[in-house]
Amino acid sequence: MRKRVIGVMGPGEKATVGDQKNAYRLGQLIAQQGWVLLTGGRNIGVMDSASRGAKESQGLTIGILPSHKTDEVSDAVDIAIVTDLGNARNNINVLSSDVIIACGMGLGTASEVALALKNSKPVILLTDHLQSQQFFTGLSEDLVSIASSPESVIELIKILTP
Amino acid sequence: MRKRVIGVMGPGEKATVGDQKNAYRLGQLIAQQGWVLLTGGRNIGVMDSASRGAKESQGLTIGILPSHKTDEVSDAVDIAIVTDLGNARNNINVLSSDVIIACGMGLGTASEVALALKNSKPVILLTDHLQSQQFFTGLSEDLVSIASSPESVIELIKILTP
Amino acid sequence: MRKRVIGVMGPGEKATVGDQKNAYRLGQLIAQQGWVLLTGGRNIGVMDSASRGAKESQGLTIGILPSHKTDEVSDAVDIAIVTDLGNARNNINVLSSDVIIACGMGLGTASEVALALKNSKPVILLTDHLQSQQFFTGLSEDLVSIASSPESVIELIKILTP
Amino acid sequence: MRKRVIGVMGPGEKATVGDQKNAYRLGQLIAQQGWVLLTGGRNIGVMDSASRGAKESQGLTIGILPSHKTDEVSDAVDIAIVTDLGNARNNINVLSSDVIIACGMGLGTASEVALALKNSKPVILLTDHLQSQQFFTGLSEDLVSIASSPESVIELIKILTP
Repeated sequence: MRKRVIGVMGPGEKATVGDQKNAYRLGQLIAQQGWVLLTGGRNIGVMDSASRGAKESQGLTIGILPSHKTDEVSDAVDIAIVTDLGNARNNINVLSSDVIIACGMGLGTASEVALALKNSKPVILLTDHLQSQQFFTGLSEDLVSIASSPESVIELIKILTP
Repeated sequence: MRKRVIGVMGPGEKATVGDQKNAYRLGQLIAQQGWVLLTGGRNIGVMDSASRGAKESQGLTIGILPSHKTDEVSDAVDIAIVTDLGNARNNINVLSSDVIIACGMGLGTASEVALALKNSKPVILLTDHLQSQQFFTGLSEDLVSIASSPESVIELIKILTP
Repeated sequence: MRKRVIGVMGPGEKATVGDQKNAYRLGQLIAQQGWVLLTGGRNIGVMDSASRGAKESQGLTIGILPSHKTDEVSDAVDIAIVTDLGNARNNINVLSSDVIIACGMGLGTASEVALALKNSKPVILLTDHLQSQQFFTGLSEDLVSIASSPESVIELIKILTP
Repeated sequence: MRKRVIGVMGPGEKATVGDQKNAYRLGQLIAQQGWVLLTGGRNIGVMDSASRGAKESQGLTIGILPSHKTDEVSDAVDIAIVTDLGNARNNINVLSSDVIIACGMGLGTASEVALALKNSKPVILLTDHLQSQQFFTGLSEDLVSIASSPESVIELIKILTP
């Protein structure tokens, strides 16, 4: 009965326009597959864009919030898990997802990718940031995949989690 | 778009038959209201019974798991939030719920009721354990209600969270 | 090489004058035994008084802080463990202590006593709050002791952790 | 009264002989400065070597343990903070340290460096792993320093935290 959960991680305040467009599209595609979207839950950046995309396609959205401030929850989050753990919640994000997508890169996202790999979770990097690709494939080659578009992320998920 | 989340807490291994019957009925009634059920997620005791009741009535069930062992998740949990935080996850249970129901009493449940009240969340005690009623109403009279049946819990929730 | 750690828990803002006097004396006595004092680390209530007592007697003081705000650390804390976990840090307080003293009672303290007992840690209640005594001894008779003075707490610790 | 705390992070099971030698020497040098050593606390790898080095020079050692299993604590840890948080404890490691040293590199260490930088903490990389140096200086140039020996780490700490 347990649903498949796809975690989409990425920058908040520092997300680029490209990151946000990719996140929105990822949200749509994840919802269209009938999968649950999990994000960091805030009303900003990749978290917010992915959640809005998923809602546009009638998906279910879970947000794992770092604080207990409910005014920072994205309107597009259906179920807010209020952790009040600060960045320690990043480990919950990755443990609760069947696959983790890094949509863009930043310090929080880097910690999530590292924790995901530490926990033997498959990670898909949707970024053309070459140093990220080299660093993480160097640390855990078997678990890291690189995608060039939201559509190819979905194809990779189907291969990685049959 | 955020859904109303009702937390049902109670003993695991030490749940009585009465606790489990109440939990199952609570799960059914919560689902019938269209509310989301949140529990500690394990496949035992009040957590499991409430989740199974909610699924019997086509509800949505969230389980906040203490470990990272996925074999201890209740089959009736739709979305497992895997915290690996041990009992520190009890604070997430209460922060993520709009109302907390204590269905029975034990040490874990006592910690959840105390944390809920500390966080100014309304708590409904569904237990005839007199010392619990006295202890918690003594510590936080305004936030504690006492119910005698699952049906009266639902009526109280409607009054407490309009 | 590991040092004995004694956890002193109790109200912050709502500590009574009696709680604070007891906490200060407990801090002195714990330090005089050569034990390490562990508290919640804030500059208020039982946490602060116990830490100041321990420093007056040249003890070592550890504070497990709920936030990442370093301006709320007691001046009498030698080593601040900055958790940023909110009340989820209460579980760390009890897991890191060999014995837990509840000096006074409140909602946070009640959660710590419950979590300590859940983790099979011995708890000493230094409070004349009858409902607390009845509630916690009812839940876990073997692990709960009741003390009437800081001096008798020390005697109990020696018996409980030989 | 608060003591200066230096966090030494690095691989556990996968630590190289060079990492362990560097960690032992770092522990000695940190203790000789009168600073407190903070590690992940386990009896393996960089954590264990750094703690043993610090004890050899009569330092004070804090270990922030991921589990509640006390048999995995290094003998050279004076004060064990038992978190039972799994890898979520990595955020506590960095928040509780004034400076973070990465002695070697691995997935857990990478998460700690990322979390440290996210929390605006200075990080010193003691590793000749070029991809780590490029990746982290690319993400947060101002906060990352690179050292070639334990001795130069100590010089950098004195400059970074006057």
